[in-house]
Amino acid sequence: MGQLVEEFNTYREKMNERIMDTANVNIKRFFALDTTSYAEGALDVKTKEMLGLVSSMVLRCDDCIKYHLGKCHEAGVNSAEMNEIFMIANLVGGSIVIPHYRRAVEYWDELNGFQQ
Amino acid sequence: MGQLVEEFNTYREKMNERIMDTANVNIKRFFALDTTSYAEGALDVKTKEMLGLVSSMVLRCDDCIKYHLGKCHEAGVNSAEMNEIFMIANLVGGSIVIPHYRRAVEYWDELNGFQQ
Amino acid sequence: MGQLVEEFNTYREKMNERIMDTANVNIKRFFALDTTSYAEGALDVKTKEMLGLVSSMVLRCDDCIKYHLGKCHEAGVNSAEMNEIFMIANLVGGSIVIPHYRRAVEYWDELNGFQQ
Amino acid sequence: MGQLVEEFNTYREKMNERIMDTANVNIKRFFALDTTSYAEGALDVKTKEMLGLVSSMVLRCDDCIKYHLGKCHEAGVNSAEMNEIFMIANLVGGSIVIPHYRRAVEYWDELNGFQQ
Amino acid sequence: MGQLVEEFNTYREKMNERIMDTANVNIKRFFALDTTSYAEGALDVKTKEMLGLVSSMVLRCDDCIKYHLGKCHEAGVNSAEMNEIFMIANLVGGSIVIPHYRRAVEYWDELNGFQQ
Amino acid sequence: MGQLVEEFNTYREKMNERIMDTANVNIKRFFALDTTSYAEGALDVKTKEMLGLVSSMVLRCDDCIKYHLGKCHEAGVNSAEMNEIFMIANLVGGSIVIPHYRRAVEYWDELNGFQQ
Repeated sequence: MGQLVEEFNTYREKMNERIMDTANVNIKRFFALDTTSYAEGALDVKTKEMLGLVSSMVLRCDDCIKYHLGKCHEAGVNSAEMNEIFMIANLVGGSIVIPHYRRAVEYWDELNGFQQ
Repeated sequence: MGQLVEEFNTYREKMNERIMDTANVNIKRFFALDTTSYAEGALDVKTKEMLGLVSSMVLRCDDCIKYHLGKCHEAGVNSAEMNEIFMIANLVGGSIVIPHYRRAVEYWDELNGFQQ
Repeated sequence: MGQLVEEFNTYREKMNERIMDTANVNIKRFFALDTTSYAEGALDVKTKEMLGLVSSMVLRCDDCIKYHLGKCHEAGVNSAEMNEIFMIANLVGGSIVIPHYRRAVEYWDELNGFQQ
Repeated sequence: MGQLVEEFNTYREKMNERIMDTANVNIKRFFALDTTSYAEGALDVKTKEMLGLVSSMVLRCDDCIKYHLGKCHEAGVNSAEMNEIFMIANLVGGSIVIPHYRRAVEYWDELNGFQQ
Repeated sequence: MGQLVEEFNTYREKMNERIMDTANVNIKRFFALDTTSYAEGALDVKTKEMLGLVSSMVLRCDDCIKYHLGKCHEAGVNSAEMNEIFMIANLVGGSIVIPHYRRAVEYWDELNGFQQ
Repeated sequence: MGQLVEEFNTYREKMNERIMDTANVNIKRFFALDTTSYAEGALDVKTKEMLGLVSSMVLRCDDCIKYHLGKCHEAGVNSAEMNEIFMIANLVGGSIVIPHYRRAVEYWDELNGFQQ
């Protein structure tokens, strides 16, 4: 596991634990929804993670992008498919997405073991 | 074809024609990209239209939502699948998406011939 | 009840019913969270509705603004308080909020029985 | 003056009067800033109105777009220049801007006396 | 004072000084409005800071969140109240707010002297 | 060249090269549009870069802001003009833009060789 992935996961897990220690019931329910909504259903996990990724890209949230890139990688999205998601995100969201796209490519490379 | 669908399509076509009459070369290239990016590729049309829809929902653009609902309908997305897209859009985008979700349900119903 | 308020409420109720007829379990849970999060708790209902309103204004969702204006009115927010919420919304969200502020003033007037 | 322009101006003026009757001091100061910031300065009025327009387009506020289209028309922006602003808005903001661009073209046509 | 709080305050103060040295009159007026709008008025400071915080969260600006967390802490917002603000921010703004919520919890902990 | 400018340019160039190695045809066309849209046309380069900058500020993308600050500097925008762009960005986008404005001032200072 590369450095970007490890840093992201470590901080995310640490803070999610802290949130579970401190949050109220509704926040916990909201986090539960965040998990179950991406589970296999009428749509498969791969499709849902692609939906989560493209949403995160057009809304320009780097951490959300990293999270869904990791999940897309686990779900078997290949690089040709990923490029088409990247294109739709850049097209719909505009050139303002490009800096997030750069960081997404860097993270995707790390997930795929590419050495820059 | 119901009233909402017809009004949307009529205005969109009228103005797209006017745009093609008046726009500069780069705008025309941008519109061309907007078409080719949703064509069959590494991802199929149905998946790409779902990506376009969820992006439009989290960015809260009613016209974009209508357009991609129409395309999802053509591509064979069923209502169970649509509800899972709606859920991800509401979850990622938040309750601020709900009014757009209401209008999306109304439009989706019309596309499916449901009489309210 | 004035015309703007009635039109908003009628459409909202009609579509919420349709949503309850068609939505999946997670969407229903999300709607439930949307209700319980504004209930009396550590913060009172009036404060929570002001939080909902200012959020809706800076995110520029007219329907959400109408909904929370109605709830603020029920919770006893007066016009001097409302103007301070309007100011924070315009300040944080910028002049892009102004058209929504205009419509909010019109709706707030109707809620308060002011005849323009 | 065409119908779209007249409707926009009439409602805007009516509500701005109501705002001046009801707003607190800070809101009035904010509105004053909104006026003086577009006055001739180091940059001329035409440039500032183009800045206001492109900002309104990427933030996707139809009323703000109409307002600055009117001001750009007064300031002598021609259609070739306008198309380049439209392109930058579509490019930076993405295809989510397109429905607003359609309505902008319709309004710009009306400002220029073009009969569709 | 913890490290996150100190770094935020130091940079903010340094750049605000530089802004006061270089900005034009309108920018200074805008900054003045930013101060006076949160002063005691029809609404008390605590309520206004909660409004500023929730707006900053749904608009997803980490620095703005840090600023208003500091002000909420000074104004005596307790952790049960803060969790209800966090919930409304997550609900209205959606799961895209979660990474900002994580960083908000970390900063809030530091303000409250909690050692992670 | 100062440190902020160099870090930004180095990372941007590295990732743009990687994108050109990996992207599909449509992404490359989108990047080409991103270049040609800012070229001299009916509007000059300086005006277009100011349009790009104000758009980036109201959409709150630090990297986009840095890029267009660099281009505005090359195009001869002076500090009085820049302050008027900053004001329109703060006004339209609201106080949520201020943290980005702080970082923009720091970067603009570095571009102009100002030692803080």
